[in-house]
Amino acid sequence: MANNFKPISGREFPRFSAIKTFFRLPIADIQHDFDVALFGVPYDGGVSYRPGARFAPTLVREVSSLGRGFHMTRAVSVFDQIRCADVGDCPIVPIDQVQTYEKIESFVSQIAQGGKRFISVGGDHSTTLPVLRALKKKYQQPLNFIHFDAHLDTYPAAWGCEYHHGAFARHAVEEGLVNPKTMLQIGIRGPLASGDDLDFVQKHGIIVKTVDDVREGSLTDFIKTLPKFTGPTYLSFDIDCLDPAYAPGTGTPVPGGLTTYETQRILRALQIDQLVGADIVEVCPPFDSSQITGLAAVDTMFELMCLMAGGRKA
Amino acid sequence: MANNFKPISGREFPRFSAIKTFFRLPIADIQHDFDVALFGVPYDGGVSYRPGARFAPTLVREVSSLGRGFHMTRAVSVFDQIRCADVGDCPIVPIDQVQTYEKIESFVSQIAQGGKRFISVGGDHSTTLPVLRALKKKYQQPLNFIHFDAHLDTYPAAWGCEYHHGAFARHAVEEGLVNPKTMLQIGIRGPLASGDDLDFVQKHGIIVKTVDDVREGSLTDFIKTLPKFTGPTYLSFDIDCLDPAYAPGTGTPVPGGLTTYETQRILRALQIDQLVGADIVEVCPPFDSSQITGLAAVDTMFELMCLMAGGRKA
Amino acid sequence: MANNFKPISGREFPRFSAIKTFFRLPIADIQHDFDVALFGVPYDGGVSYRPGARFAPTLVREVSSLGRGFHMTRAVSVFDQIRCADVGDCPIVPIDQVQTYEKIESFVSQIAQGGKRFISVGGDHSTTLPVLRALKKKYQQPLNFIHFDAHLDTYPAAWGCEYHHGAFARHAVEEGLVNPKTMLQIGIRGPLASGDDLDFVQKHGIIVKTVDDVREGSLTDFIKTLPKFTGPTYLSFDIDCLDPAYAPGTGTPVPGGLTTYETQRILRALQIDQLVGADIVEVCPPFDSSQITGLAAVDTMFELMCLMAGGRKA
Amino acid sequence: MANNFKPISGREFPRFSAIKTFFRLPIADIQHDFDVALFGVPYDGGVSYRPGARFAPTLVREVSSLGRGFHMTRAVSVFDQIRCADVGDCPIVPIDQVQTYEKIESFVSQIAQGGKRFISVGGDHSTTLPVLRALKKKYQQPLNFIHFDAHLDTYPAAWGCEYHHGAFARHAVEEGLVNPKTMLQIGIRGPLASGDDLDFVQKHGIIVKTVDDVREGSLTDFIKTLPKFTGPTYLSFDIDCLDPAYAPGTGTPVPGGLTTYETQRILRALQIDQLVGADIVEVCPPFDSSQITGLAAVDTMFELMCLMAGGRKA
Amino acid sequence: MANNFKPISGREFPRFSAIKTFFRLPIADIQHDFDVALFGVPYDGGVSYRPGARFAPTLVREVSSLGRGFHMTRAVSVFDQIRCADVGDCPIVPIDQVQTYEKIESFVSQIAQGGKRFISVGGDHSTTLPVLRALKKKYQQPLNFIHFDAHLDTYPAAWGCEYHHGAFARHAVEEGLVNPKTMLQIGIRGPLASGDDLDFVQKHGIIVKTVDDVREGSLTDFIKTLPKFTGPTYLSFDIDCLDPAYAPGTGTPVPGGLTTYETQRILRALQIDQLVGADIVEVCPPFDSSQITGLAAVDTMFELMCLMAGGRKA
Amino acid sequence: MANNFKPISGREFPRFSAIKTFFRLPIADIQHDFDVALFGVPYDGGVSYRPGARFAPTLVREVSSLGRGFHMTRAVSVFDQIRCADVGDCPIVPIDQVQTYEKIESFVSQIAQGGKRFISVGGDHSTTLPVLRALKKKYQQPLNFIHFDAHLDTYPAAWGCEYHHGAFARHAVEEGLVNPKTMLQIGIRGPLASGDDLDFVQKHGIIVKTVDDVREGSLTDFIKTLPKFTGPTYLSFDIDCLDPAYAPGTGTPVPGGLTTYETQRILRALQIDQLVGADIVEVCPPFDSSQITGLAAVDTMFELMCLMAGGRKA
Repeated sequence: MANNFKPISGREFPRFSAIKTFFRLPIADIQHDFDVALFGVPYDGGVSYRPGARFAPTLVREVSSLGRGFHMTRAVSVFDQIRCADVGDCPIVPIDQVQTYEKIESFVSQIAQGGKRFISVGGDHSTTLPVLRALKKKYQQPLNFIHFDAHLDTYPAAWGCEYHHGAFARHAVEEGLVNPKTMLQIGIRGPLASGDDLDFVQKHGIIVKTVDDVREGSLTDFIKTLPKFTGPTYLSFDIDCLDPAYAPGTGTPVPGGLTTYETQRILRALQIDQLVGADIVEVCPPFDSSQITGLAAVDTMFELMCLMAGGRKA
Repeated sequence: MANNFKPISGREFPRFSAIKTFFRLPIADIQHDFDVALFGVPYDGGVSYRPGARFAPTLVREVSSLGRGFHMTRAVSVFDQIRCADVGDCPIVPIDQVQTYEKIESFVSQIAQGGKRFISVGGDHSTTLPVLRALKKKYQQPLNFIHFDAHLDTYPAAWGCEYHHGAFARHAVEEGLVNPKTMLQIGIRGPLASGDDLDFVQKHGIIVKTVDDVREGSLTDFIKTLPKFTGPTYLSFDIDCLDPAYAPGTGTPVPGGLTTYETQRILRALQIDQLVGADIVEVCPPFDSSQITGLAAVDTMFELMCLMAGGRKA
Repeated sequence: MANNFKPISGREFPRFSAIKTFFRLPIADIQHDFDVALFGVPYDGGVSYRPGARFAPTLVREVSSLGRGFHMTRAVSVFDQIRCADVGDCPIVPIDQVQTYEKIESFVSQIAQGGKRFISVGGDHSTTLPVLRALKKKYQQPLNFIHFDAHLDTYPAAWGCEYHHGAFARHAVEEGLVNPKTMLQIGIRGPLASGDDLDFVQKHGIIVKTVDDVREGSLTDFIKTLPKFTGPTYLSFDIDCLDPAYAPGTGTPVPGGLTTYETQRILRALQIDQLVGADIVEVCPPFDSSQITGLAAVDTMFELMCLMAGGRKA
Repeated sequence: MANNFKPISGREFPRFSAIKTFFRLPIADIQHDFDVALFGVPYDGGVSYRPGARFAPTLVREVSSLGRGFHMTRAVSVFDQIRCADVGDCPIVPIDQVQTYEKIESFVSQIAQGGKRFISVGGDHSTTLPVLRALKKKYQQPLNFIHFDAHLDTYPAAWGCEYHHGAFARHAVEEGLVNPKTMLQIGIRGPLASGDDLDFVQKHGIIVKTVDDVREGSLTDFIKTLPKFTGPTYLSFDIDCLDPAYAPGTGTPVPGGLTTYETQRILRALQIDQLVGADIVEVCPPFDSSQITGLAAVDTMFELMCLMAGGRKA
Repeated sequence: MANNFKPISGREFPRFSAIKTFFRLPIADIQHDFDVALFGVPYDGGVSYRPGARFAPTLVREVSSLGRGFHMTRAVSVFDQIRCADVGDCPIVPIDQVQTYEKIESFVSQIAQGGKRFISVGGDHSTTLPVLRALKKKYQQPLNFIHFDAHLDTYPAAWGCEYHHGAFARHAVEEGLVNPKTMLQIGIRGPLASGDDLDFVQKHGIIVKTVDDVREGSLTDFIKTLPKFTGPTYLSFDIDCLDPAYAPGTGTPVPGGLTTYETQRILRALQIDQLVGADIVEVCPPFDSSQITGLAAVDTMFELMCLMAGGRKA
Repeated sequence: MANNFKPISGREFPRFSAIKTFFRLPIADIQHDFDVALFGVPYDGGVSYRPGARFAPTLVREVSSLGRGFHMTRAVSVFDQIRCADVGDCPIVPIDQVQTYEKIESFVSQIAQGGKRFISVGGDHSTTLPVLRALKKKYQQPLNFIHFDAHLDTYPAAWGCEYHHGAFARHAVEEGLVNPKTMLQIGIRGPLASGDDLDFVQKHGIIVKTVDDVREGSLTDFIKTLPKFTGPTYLSFDIDCLDPAYAPGTGTPVPGGLTTYETQRILRALQIDQLVGADIVEVCPPFDSSQITGLAAVDTMFELMCLMAGGRKA
């Protein structure tokens, strides 16, 4: 069967033209026959500082017009290997997190139950929890979890609310959605609110790679320390793992972060035999005046598609 | 008794210096002895498009450093007439509207029950409803209600949610918080979602002054058509009553709006014997690149203080 | 037959969500059965100062999410009256104006020959010429032409090039595409490069309404002076007819311009029995930091759809 | 003698090209033979809030590339009537107002004593005082003074400093540089710091036209109330006379201001037989994100050149 | 005694709420009993290019709402160890450097004589000189001086003015305020105005660490080369030591600078037994469109508090 | 003969003052007696995504006011060694690439034939081709070519057009203007449109240094791998070789790029005995909100002048 899930060519139609879909890919229904669903999750009700990530799917769709398909290091044309499509945005309710969680879980379940993998663009990080709930149901086991972030996101409730964007990783562990022993956090750095903030990851034996760890020796040395991931794996990329110089447009930026080159090298080095889903969250367009945060998200999305192209199917 | 509730003088300490409070006024507890409490309500969970109004109290505090106290038309020094203080921000819970409503109602009740009047800076327009609930309890009658806005805000529920920022005025009427017969809406303009959107105001006999009405003849003629307000009155100023040229930094801007000069003239002309509270809402700093929306809010706040200085006490 | 050409409801799916099409309308092929085609013409190679209008279709699609369908003054739900669809962007070649003109003419011809009307979002004003060429072929007569602009656009060649954005109106007359006797220019103002610049409009008897003319008396009086348009009519709205306060994001802004309220009132007053096509040009997103120019374009697009809803079919 | 003081033509060399001079005019030494010197005064040490006007000459030179020479209402090609040149920037010392005042006075004296008129671009309004001192020496009499501003600028010393930007007009009167009886202030509006702020203008009989005055009836009626100016006259245009919607990029903006159309109409109506100098001050580029304030300055500069073209020589 | 000098908790009151003080700490008078005074010095009259640092205290107060107190590397909760308070802004006179210097010296003397340490947020770098004068009086000896900067700031007078922001370090040495033998400059890079610019540091034996020095080997190796500081030490952090990618919002940026990670690592490695005061200067908010420069300042302020928490008291 | 080609001193006239020329150097005619001509090429008609580079010469002239002449590493005062002048902008025709190419070739020929070297500021990268054509005529041999870029620019025609900004390097090789064996590309990184994109450089044996190559070991090691260049050499610096964090203001940014420190070190290490010309292209001011891209261009321009100061004459 011919693969019709190819981007519009930038050499036929200029990249600034056409209705904006992720990577200029076709729009499709979830039921169609393809491999990887790309969608937006425009919910930012869970943030603790700057809202605005609800506009991230729109920004990333626009900037992804600059995306290309051939990975120079991997020597692979990703769109020849997997059929990707833009399935639009997941329904959400801006005022109501409970309803939003139900809608996200249901939307992702449809995709996953249909045997498809996916990459979503948040939204704030509180949206990852219902995604993991859907995947737990599908795979009937806790997932491996690769988590790029400046923050541990294992923090306690805030203002009496459990499900803010800094607590999702704790819930994911506590609900048994992910396996803390095969959970890797990269890009973590301080300051923290208090020393207690480290208790959770220590208690559960989560593998934490701080920026200091990444830069202790050469980058080549660092990536050799990364574990392999076997079985259903989810990857969540909070754009604030990047330094504010590389990703100013985010809700709770932290200085001293990673560069896009470092995250590229790490993403290229990851060995994951079954990457069933991934997300890029916390892109906040109102603070991204030169669109470079959106562009970093696009580049990460490309690396994620390549990771999916390489491994085993969902 | 000496009035110590005076702004820091811009001729002694430059306006760009000092910790930012509204109009460079003293910080005070609600219990202190003064007349008008100024506070922020940094909740924007009720918006339907752009969030960001949570940063409005901070922006307005900063820009209000440019504020001055003598009204040229009224020939009144407002801070000689009423003692105003910055009482900080009302507690809110960003993720949880129910809790937020309770906190706002409680906070406003404390102020109102203590015999003080107030002007708040939102926040989105969904925050006005709990304010009106508190005032209803205090005054034991529906209030007169003056409502500057591009939108009627009498719209139905959205996404299954009743309490979004476009429905508060409907709830205020339905809950008996305001008297529709002494309710005035100014700055209204289309387009609307559908013709039904007008049913509510027509059914309840709310006085609606569209931009067309304001500009039918001279401004001087228009302000003669405004009713007098006797008894407890609340004024809510949605910054989007202004044209986007005058207030770009707002969540749901509508072209064809009022100018700041028009709202100044209308505010100066209003006859209100007992203005018990007021708010300025929907200032959205992330979209206010030159701070002119914040400045329009400051100017409106000044006019509101003057309205309070002129009338009967709370 | 059911009208399926309705926007996604903002009360079901929040306005910031979904793939961005004009007014959240369905994407359709030109051949489908509907009334009015909306499309982008992302070519800005003809500008004399700031480029960037190539991004206007993307910006206008995004901001048109705020669009609504019921016209308060006309009391009409436009999407009940005409079936509108987003047909994507017209093909263009950024480096090559000759090819671009051919592609635009061909694209518009397909639409017009199929009996549809259309509204396009440019692009710079040089793109209007091939549109008029296509319409001339379709209607076999010079069209009536309503032209909102700060500039006459009847200027001579520049840098040896005939087809820059300030000369299209001259070519339209010289090629017999429009009838100068039923050609109306609104919003014109100086300064000009020289006194000769007025020769063309005077020689051809084009009706020129300057900003001074619009503001000589009341706006209500002014709109009474507007002629009626009978027969195939085209309307081209250069966003720079608006004052830079209302439309900062444009390529060659001119102070002293119209307000959005004035253009709304004029557009509502126009009597056109057969509006066969229209465009909105010269929106330049890189200079539209608060998106208010994009919003003015959206509002104008709505008024144009209403003008098409009211008149005779193509 | 041939007039070589013509702008580079935008039809030969695109307006975005070339080294930026005011209106693309030739650079000249003060001693050269021409009529009107254009220069910058990049001093902003006298401001009370936002600095940045030091960059105004650069911004205005850049944006003046959009300038044209034929005045549509006057039907005059200004560069045919007067020979204008860019003479660069007046020397100033950013830290030292005393030295700066000496340098400005000396620089302007050279121009004026050489029989030339001039238009300068500030800088903040404190720079106008030494200009007036130089002109007083040249003309040996107090000048007529036309002063566009939101502020009276007759305020007392601040922070122990007499010569801040809000006091220059008081000093100009007190030093006998201008004649208060033939001094006109336009665009004035409140709020003021206190009621005393009006004492100075009342005591000296300065003609004050507030925004309310301008808009009391029709603009046509208002301009009939303007006095004629006979003898040496200076015009100072503080860009903050304009509303923040029209001039966001200024140091101390005040809502409720004039539109560019209103200032155009007033400038066109002024009858001045001997306009010997003029300035445009308080353009603050760091807050002028869309360059519309710079553009308003360019437009005003054009009107001022036309005023000089019409009247008697220096 | 209970330590009441704790920040408002972000888990009780959202970080975007409340009147903005440094790190959400209490406002206190200088006389109160606490350890470290935080204040602003909003003077930018000494700059040679972009002004605007007068707004830095306001920006840093706002962004410091994101600050947290537990240092991950040091495993210390800084606010448990030292009691910090916001004492407001130091009085200054924007037009008058002489008066400003006196006011700064007096203000700092009060703090230092009272046995407190402090961290200030400038203002431009010319404000550091009077601070050092006050400290010299207090400690009766030249201080050790750690100076992060792109520039040597030992340059000669400019425009006849000695005390511009590029000369303060020279004056500090010449006035005997700091000991050049225990003076360390980090982040220095070219270009310079001339070769003579290096004479001063060479003659006085100041330790200069250029960016080349920092990056000659590994960062871990570099920090081993840093000297220990014994006795009263002052640290001045010019934000332009950072690369423009990390700190775009500054007055005289220089490419090829340090990263925030590098300055973090250096600040963490410094061994200072008695850090009596510190400043962060040259943050210029009007050029910090995404607030990342303000955020870098906040992060540095946190590291400085930790340095103070670790060492001997004032 | 005295060298009069010195910049205006920043210690005599503040850097924000004066008409803006490159590095505050004198304006000169091409025929004057000096060494290196600096000029702008404001053409951006060849871009595939964001236009706007036409404004780069203006931005770079403005920001170059911050430029200084003494190179700290080289210990050389560049303006003592070579006489540089601003010769204005090369004529171009915005709509017409054919004419533009002729004008650029002619302009550069005049400079080169007169025995001068030059550094230009584009414009987009399509403008380099006619420059190389002119140099081929002058030197009668293919040049050595050093090409900093994220992209190979050896791509095929797009939209039927050969001469877009991504194809110039291919044409330069195919036309025999440069010698592929002594052609070095630095900063290259993916993704590419397809694997075929690498065929050209492989077939021609062009030396390609990717970002991975630069960062494989230490920077000091990398620069040892750079070849020497003997004979006429041209250097083209596409600002997008830098990472978007360092150069957000460009037309087609690519994450994972070089830092300014890396390009400085590489430029300092290059051994070129006869650098006859150079350009800096693809600076796009409308996307450079904090001017850091312009500043990176200024810094690169300084390094290029130093490279010219060191080597053999044209």
